[in-house]
Order: sequence, then C-alpha cells, then structure tokens
Amino acid sequence: MTELFYIPKQEFERLKELNLTPENYTNIFATCCRINTLYMIAKAGSGHIGSSFSSLDIVSWLFLQELNLPDDIYYSSKGHDVPGLYAVLIAIGLLEFDLIHKLRRLDGLPGHPDISTPYIVTNTGSLGMGISKAKGMVKAQRLKGKNSQIYVLTGDGELQEGQFWESLQSAANQNLHEITAIVDYNKIQSDTWVAKVSDLGDLERKFTAFGWYVSRCNGNDIYAFSQVMAELKTITNQPKIVIADTIKGKGVSFMEKMEENQRLYKFHSGAPDEEIYTKAVRELIATVNNLLAQVGAEKLTLEKVIYTKPQPPARVEKLIPVYSEALLKEARNHSQLVALDADLALDCGLIPFEEQFPERFVECGIAEQDMVSMAGGMALKGLLPVVHSFACFLSSRPNEQIYNNATERTKIIYVGSLAGLLPAGPGHSHQCVRDISALGGVPGLIMLEPSCAAEVALALDYCVNGTSQSSYLRLVSIPCQIPYELPRDYKLILGQGVTLVEGEDTILFSYGPVMLPQAYQAAKILGEKYNISLKVVNLPWLNYVDLNWLGAVTQGFTWVFTLDNHYISGGQGEKIASGLAQLGGKVKVKQFGVGDIPKCGQNDEVLQVHRLDAASLVEDIAKVMVG
Amino acid sequence: MTELFYIPKQEFERLKELNLTPENYTNIFATCCRINTLYMIAKAGSGHIGSSFSSLDIVSWLFLQELNLPDDIYYSSKGHDVPGLYAVLIAIGLLEFDLIHKLRRLDGLPGHPDISTPYIVTNTGSLGMGISKAKGMVKAQRLKGKNSQIYVLTGDGELQEGQFWESLQSAANQNLHEITAIVDYNKIQSDTWVAKVSDLGDLERKFTAFGWYVSRCNGNDIYAFSQVMAELKTITNQPKIVIADTIKGKGVSFMEKMEENQRLYKFHSGAPDEEIYTKAVRELIATVNNLLAQVGAEKLTLEKVIYTKPQPPARVEKLIPVYSEALLKEARNHSQLVALDADLALDCGLIPFEEQFPERFVECGIAEQDMVSMAGGMALKGLLPVVHSFACFLSSRPNEQIYNNATERTKIIYVGSLAGLLPAGPGHSHQCVRDISALGGVPGLIMLEPSCAAEVALALDYCVNGTSQSSYLRLVSIPCQIPYELPRDYKLILGQGVTLVEGEDTILFSYGPVMLPQAYQAAKILGEKYNISLKVVNLPWLNYVDLNWLGAVTQGFTWVFTLDNHYISGGQGEKIASGLAQLGGKVKVKQFGVGDIPKCGQNDEVLQVHRLDAASLVEDIAKVMVG
Repeated sequence: MTELFYIPKQEFERLKELNLTPENYTNIFATCCRINTLYMIAKAGSGHIGSSFSSLDIVSWLFLQELNLPDDIYYSSKGHDVPGLYAVLIAIGLLEFDLIHKLRRLDGLPGHPDISTPYIVTNTGSLGMGISKAKGMVKAQRLKGKNSQIYVLTGDGELQEGQFWESLQSAANQNLHEITAIVDYNKIQSDTWVAKVSDLGDLERKFTAFGWYVSRCNGNDIYAFSQVMAELKTITNQPKIVIADTIKGKGVSFMEKMEENQRLYKFHSGAPDEEIYTKAVRELIATVNNLLAQVGAEKLTLEKVIYTKPQPPARVEKLIPVYSEALLKEARNHSQLVALDADLALDCGLIPFEEQFPERFVECGIAEQDMVSMAGGMALKGLLPVVHSFACFLSSRPNEQIYNNATERTKIIYVGSLAGLLPAGPGHSHQCVRDISALGGVPGLIMLEPSCAAEVALALDYCVNGTSQSSYLRLVSIPCQIPYELPRDYKLILGQGVTLVEGEDTILFSYGPVMLPQAYQAAKILGEKYNISLKVVNLPWLNYVDLNWLGAVTQGFTWVFTLDNHYISGGQGEKIASGLAQLGGKVKVKQFGVGDIPKCGQNDEVLQVHRLDAASLVEDIAKVMVG
Repeated sequence: MTELFYIPKQEFERLKELNLTPENYTNIFATCCRINTLYMIAKAGSGHIGSSFSSLDIVSWLFLQELNLPDDIYYSSKGHDVPGLYAVLIAIGLLEFDLIHKLRRLDGLPGHPDISTPYIVTNTGSLGMGISKAKGMVKAQRLKGKNSQIYVLTGDGELQEGQFWESLQSAANQNLHEITAIVDYNKIQSDTWVAKVSDLGDLERKFTAFGWYVSRCNGNDIYAFSQVMAELKTITNQPKIVIADTIKGKGVSFMEKMEENQRLYKFHSGAPDEEIYTKAVRELIATVNNLLAQVGAEKLTLEKVIYTKPQPPARVEKLIPVYSEALLKEARNHSQLVALDADLALDCGLIPFEEQFPERFVECGIAEQDMVSMAGGMALKGLLPVVHSFACFLSSRPNEQIYNNATERTKIIYVGSLAGLLPAGPGHSHQCVRDISALGGVPGLIMLEPSCAAEVALALDYCVNGTSQSSYLRLVSIPCQIPYELPRDYKLILGQGVTLVEGEDTILFSYGPVMLPQAYQAAKILGEKYNISLKVVNLPWLNYVDLNWLGAVTQGFTWVFTLDNHYISGGQGEKIASGLAQLGGKVKVKQFGVGDIPKCGQNDEVLQVHRLDAASLVEDIAKVMVG
C-alpha cells in the first residue's frame, strides 16, 4: 500500500494565474509535471522515468511558449519519454485530466505514443524514424502551401541507429528549415552510459558535416534553452539541431546520480518501489514549494491516491534468467561462441555472460543492422554468434541483413526477447506479434519458442548442438505461471510437439508460456463445463511442422484448433493448417491468435480483449464444438 | 551476330613476364581486365559495366600488389562491380579461366557476389553491409589472434544507406585499424549524378567526424592510389577510408561522358548492343596496344567468339511501362498523390511521372528506411504516397518502418518491382522470393500482383480508389509472353480470382506473368499427354483469400495445386492451403514454389532447375494425379 500524489487541474490553473516570467512559470510547471509523471508511472507499474524527467523542461517550454497549435508539430522520436509528454498535455488541458490515472491501461494512454491519443501526431517507440517522418510532413505542408514548424525530440542512444544518419543529408540538401531537432543528450541509454555502449563521438562536428545548423545548451536550464529557441528562429535556410545537454532522472537527486563505473542505470524503465517513490515525490514537492515560496505563492495542494501493488502469483517461471544460465553453459563448452547485444544486455539476460566472458561479449549499441551484419562477418570467420535484441526489433529492423546472412549458409543464432503480445504495457511498437511472419520465410532458419523454464536450455542446446542451421529463439520475458510439466524424457525433435493435456474430442496446438497455460486452463474448463475433452499439444517449432507427426497426432479428430501468440496471419497456425491441407485429412481448422494491432493495457485485460484468455477460448471452442 | 573478344590466359602470362614497374604492369593489366569484363557482360546479356570499369584500377592494384592472400581480405560492399573483380581473379588464375564464358549462367559466376565462388568472401548486392561485416571479421580474427588486413570497396550512392553510417562509429571507437574502406567515388549512381539524387555533402569532413582516418586520391591513377596505400600502412590506430575519385565507365571515352543535365547514365547496368560493344572494345584494345608499344612489347593477341543475341519472343507484355501510364492517370485525378523513389526511377517506371509532376516526385536516394518513414509522415498530413523500389529491398530493408506506418492506419501504396525469381541473372540479392512472407503479416496491408499488362491498371486503380487500406503492388519486371486474356468484364474483387483455363480434373492457383503462363502451358500439355484437365485460376491477392469463393471454386476437386513465384514457405500457396483447412473440405493440397535460395542463371534454366517450368509442373502434377 503506497500513498501516491498528483497535482490536480486547479493547481495548474492557479499556477497559470501567478503572473510569473515565462522562464519561471515553465520551470515550476515542469517540476509539477515530474510529480504527475511519477504518479502515472507508479500507478501503471511501469514506464520510463529517466528520460521523461530529462526532457520535461524542454517539452514544457515548447508547449507553453513555442508551439503555435495546431499548426506547429511536436513529437518525440524515441517515444519512451511519453509519460512526461502526457503530463504536460494533461496539465495544459489538451488531454482530459482523468487520463492521468490511465497510463498503460486499456483505452487509456499507451506506453509508447500512438496517434489515437489527441496531440500525438505519429507513432514512435521504434527508434530512429523521427527526422524521416518530419521530412515527409514538411513535404506535405509545402505542397499544400502551409508553413508549420516541426520540433522533433530524439534520444542520444537513438543516434546509434543508421536511419537517423540516413535521414539527415537530404533535409540539409533541400533546406528543410521547418525542422528543429532536439537531442535529449542525457548521456545514458537503456542500460548504461552512451559513451560505454557506443560512444557518439563529436556530435557537433557530425551534425555540421551533415549540413545542419547546430546549437548546444543545457537542456535543463530553461533560460538557456529559450535563448537557443530564439536564436534558431533567425535560421531560415537550414534544418536545425539542438544538442540539449540534460540529466537523466533530472529533478530527483538520487535519480540523477550514476557512477562512472556503474554497469546499469536504475531508472530507465520500470516503476519505483514504495520507498523510492516516496523519497522522490517528497523531493519534487519540496522543490516546487520552494519555488512557489520564492514568488510568494502558496504551497501545492496535492491529491492523494492509495495504491496497492498487485501481488504477483505465487509460483512463476522466468525464462530470461534461465536463458542466461543456459548461455553460460554453452559458452563454457564452445570457445567460438560470442554474444552480441544492442543495448538490451539487462533485458536479454546478458549481464552474466558479459561478466564471465568479457572478450566474447560484443556490445553494438542500438544498431541492429550493424549487429546482424557483424554477426555475418563473424560466422564467415568461424565464430558462432548469438545475436540478441527484443523480438520486435530483431525480426524487422535487420530483416534484410538476416536474409543476407542466410544466403551465406553460415550458422547464427538469433534470440528475440520480449516476444509476443505480453507485456501489453509498452504498446504495439514493443508487442512482437509479427516475427514468425517476418522471418518465417528465411531459408534454413529454424524458429522455436520454449514453453517453460525447463524447455529453455533444451531449446538453446538444440540451436547450438542439435543443428547445423541458423535458428531464431523466441523468448517471452514476462513471468508466467506454468500449470504443466514436460515429460521427463522430453527431447526436442524438429517439427514435432508434445502433448501436455490428453484429450479425445478435439485438439489444440500452441507454444510458449503465455498461451499454453491459457490452453491448459481452457481444457480444464471445457471438460468441467461442456464435457469436451481437449487435447493440448505444445509445438515449439514456429515455422516448420513434421507432416508425418502431424498426421498421427491429429488422427481421428474432426476439429483442430491452433493458438498463436502472434498475428493469425503468418503465424504457426497457418503452418499447421497448411500442413493439414497437404495431408488431405477431413479435419477442419480454426486459428486463434492476434487479429488486429495489439492493444496496450494490463496483461490480463489485453489477453481478454483479443479473446486469447482461457475464458474466451472456452467460449469460442465450445461454440464450434456444440454449436 | 556480334564478334566478341577476350584476352586469353597466355596473354596475361606474357604480360607478367614483361618486367614492368608495378604501376605500369597494373595499368596495362587493368585495361586488359576491362576488355574481358566487357566480353563477359556482352555475352551474359546483362551486368554492370560502369562501376566495374571505375573500380578496376583499384581492384587490380590490390590483387597484384597489396593483398597477402589468403590472410588478407578484399570484397566489394556494393557488389555489382563483380564482373570487374571476376576478370581480375580469372586473369591472375585464382578462378578457372573457363568461367570467363559463364557470367550469370547456372553454376557459373553469379550476377552479384556469392561465397560459392572461390575468393568471394561474403555475399553482397544488398547495399550498406560491407563495413559491418568487416568489423565482424576483425573481431573474429582478433579473438583467434590472427592479423588480417580487410579492404572493403563501397559505392558512392551506397553511402546514402543508413547502415553505412551506423557501422562507422564503433569501428573508430574500437580502433579497428585492420579495416581499409575505399569509396569508388565515380559520382554517378544507378540512375544519374549522386549530387542530383541525394548529394553526399563533404565526405572528408563526415568521415573525419566519425573518427576515421581519411585519404583522398584519383582512384584511376595507379601511382596516386599506390602512394595512398603506402601511407595508410603507417596508420595503425584508426580504421582508414580512401575517397577514390574515379570515373564511371573509365577506359571507354563515350562511357566516361555524362552531361551535367543528362537525366540517365547509360552504362550502369545492362549489356551493350553490337555497335556500342564494338566501339568500346576497339578503344580498349587500342589503349592496351599503345601501352604495350610504349614498353616495346608486342600487340595483344585476342580470342574471338561469335555471339548471337537470343531473339526475344515475338509478342511480349512489359508491365513496368504500363504501370508508368497507369500512375500518370491516377496522378491526374488525385492531386494528393506523390511518388517516392530510391534511385531506381528508370527501372520502376517513374521517369514519365517525374517529367509530368516534378513537384510531386520525391527522389530519396538509396535510403529505403528514410523513404518509407517519409511516406508515413506524408500520409499523416493527407498525401497519398506511392513508394517505389525493387521488391527485394522494399520488403526487407524498411520492414519495421512499413509496420510502423501500418500501426498509424494511414494509407500508403508500396510498389515493389523486379519481383519474383526472374530475372535470374542478378542473383539472390535481387531475386525477390520472400516479400509475401516478410510483409504478409503487416495488418491492413493488401498485397496483389497483376498477371498481365491489362491487370496492371486495374490493380493500381484498386489500390488508389478501391480500398481505404494500404497496399503492396508486386510487379514483375521482365517481358513476358502472355497466352491468356482476362475476361472483358473482369473486375478485381478482394480475395477472389479468375479462371484462365477451364478444367474438370484438378485445379491450380497462381498469380503473375511469370508463373501463370507456365501453368497455362502445363494445362495444355497435361490435357494432350495425360488426358488430365487442369483448371488454372489467377488469384492476384497474395496474402488474403476469400474463403467462400475458395470453397466454391474448389468444389468437387480432390487435388488442389498452388504455384508461387516466391518461397513455398510464407507464399500464397500457404494462405490457400490454410484457407482450405479452415473450410475443412476433403481436398489435398500440393504447393509448388521456390524451395531453396534462388539459383543465378538464364531465366529458362533457372525456372527449370527450381522445377517451376511448364514441363516440370506437368511431370509433378501427373505424378500426383496418375501416380
């Protein structure tokens, strides 16, 4: 039970009436928004504090003093700083105030920007696209004879993405002066110091070389930033970029601190625990009250909300730590095994590997294309590269690079974490439900997903020792309750699955620790409630089915169900259905899976809204079976 | 009938014995290799003359004077200059001399580099991957305690790719001094002047800003280049890059010339006709003989080959020019329609659009990610972007950007040319047989392929006027003989096809102007030879089938065949098979399509080797039907 605080609407109205200088007003406003951002993230249970805080002075100044709405445009290219932006939009009244309670909730405010929210002009969260989009907007506005200023905030880690540099040159060649890019240069990316991940070098020199007008200032000093904005108004023949030196976690002393040798920054993403929250909010309130006192105004009046953190289920399995151990074991046995990372070492479970095999750990930064082609070069020279990122990025950003490697028929292991519909909080840029489709056609690429902790080591063992082909290991990152156990003598056989629940009336195929427990639960309810005996089969192979096995296991059934933690289109269910059609049986297939762009929200509610929870499956299967 | 000339093995041996200075020897050698390159391309009927010629002095010097083989490594990141490289490898004796006659032939020398060829160290042809791969190789060599010098040639247009810039920084941060990149800066990319497509700005300044050691020289002056190579040996704490100013088409006066206002450079790709060939080879022979005379050596003795150009079939349909016209028509009716190009305006049929609607034509350069995200920004601001590239690049390089746009539910039309297995000459980097799979799962993206010229305008009309969704128009670029006609009242109905050949015994679904004529022909032979009556259906929808229609059209058949101009995995056949399984009929499905990485060769022989020609289809269908 935590006491959470937020600043209500009327307090922002009072602030507005205080008749302060623009700089003073913005300064107090921004700190108030930090309090509300912290509230939103604490209540949501996840979100990005660090860069919301580093950018809030900039965002506040833009919305309070610069933007001529609705003509002018602002958005963040990195997107994960959106809780800060929401706090600003709510405080100004551009978003309904009530949304403050609905970060990362169904029909609330998505974890990354989505244009379904008013004043969110483009979907971001996949990095590096911001300047390109701005160029398209300028072209459109010019064709229509309109003049809009477009302000794009970028991260610093984001500058490691090739698309960012790809987008710079033509903006300069074509004098797209309507664009002002602002680098939120807080020096820390997802895991740690930018300089340690992949140093950006001399940014001023680079931007100048690319033909942009460059300014630099302290991005947490509102006066300094306002001066730069005024200066840039005079530049009308070049696109403009501001290197805004900021502090990640700005406003809360202990969030601002990171030792030079510290491996991980603690406040990039995730919610604060009670102690951290309370300490942080007290400091922020004190700061605001102090500023108010300086201008002779009354202290803040805050609203209080009692928040009880949902208790996680008692017995859960976490696949990532198990993967970490399995990777260490393989690395001990294979000196040619190297691990590559794209600034997600913590989330991909690579910290233990980095500690034990520093010379075989390759940190590439947020540069997935470069990482994958590097892996290609390594494989050509005899190494066994294991390439890591989130599944959403790994399957799509370096899609052509993965294919190019495949045409060389070398062996590379790709490991995509955060796979599938859940967690549903980050939103669709991170909910990876398209990787089987995007990579399924890569020749020689075996795709597989373990269903529980026990299957993780088996799966990695298969990738390393069981095949000469390349593979894609799909890992769910959320903790899952696993109601089933694999047979003791279970072995992975390419294209074949294993029965988790026996059943005689009908059969369902699925994979992974998110959907199989739903299927397991559905089988139980179907038996109890409808007297339907559902056989549940774990088929860990995502893009290949052994047709002999499939024929045998579906023998005698009339209906076959498939359940994908993926879009129905291009998912495993399509491979199974297609296999059954090749066999020419009399079975009829129904495919369950994600039918439309994933919703953002809490895990349970999102499973339900996509009708992939046990209860919905029961209904839909019963409808088919009993009419 | 053309007389083609090449320089035989013994002449290169004579050259070697002449006791010349390294510079003089290399100079004569390189010009001899130009003669053989021209021979190879003329005989193959296609290939890249311009950049083979611009880079041949560099490549010759490296192989004759610099590389310590097999430890040191050379490759071209752009890859399309490979005929020049082959000529060098053949002249030195590193490749069998006989291969000189087998450019772009089955089991010969692929149109783009493939590691199946000796001394080809990595597969290129998809641009921008070269430095990344070199970094991976350096990492591998360092781990093994080996020391190799890695020389990577890049194009200049290639520098528009984001991955190139993405790959630079960490090479500098990690002092990968083993890498020497050489920019073949011939100033002309696929279509025209680099400066007109997307000017590169001040390259020296950029590379320096990225932390590389930069040199510059005339890349067609062997002495100057050798001096730079010597200088770079002294640099052991930085990766190195040489801006080699070269001339595209170097060595043949009329290939070197391009007027500043000329829209298209004529010798980027494609074979010379008889007149051009003869003029060019005479000039090159004269140059060599002149150089030989200067050192007191005898004239060249050349081998002569009589070459008869294969006659194209009498009546062919070309889809690209028809698309050009259709696009113009739509553009006249829709002022918000804009066309985006990535340096393939000629091949994608955009020259007429550019001429008629210059303000609505957006040349993006070789920057597909930037192009697609720009289109996203344009669509958000009310334009209707039509985005063009080769299908192989468009479906994979900006894969995540296309998905990001899809999540905004705006309307964008993607047009992928050069789709499918043919032309088979360029090799697998360009043979696009994975786009249905790579993009099929993008929500709301309708993918379709016209089967003949008459269907092109209908398809574009559907994309522009018939749907509010985004679409992907897949276009075959080779001229095709079309034996069928669409019904007069034919209309495109989403998910439904049209019967081209009536038949009663069995049914085959396919699409596009390459496979449907094979199916048509197969139906004829099956009837005549086996008395099997095959119904052939054109289903232009690649990732969606109307199940009601599918049920009706397959009614009464036991066997259903599908034929993909695509990998079987993830192709249209899988959608049809999966649809049939959902319908639960008693049909049995067999899918034809590309089963492994496409072979390079002549179109007929490659269709045959993948068993997708009419004769193979007849055999395989007959085997199924009559056992």
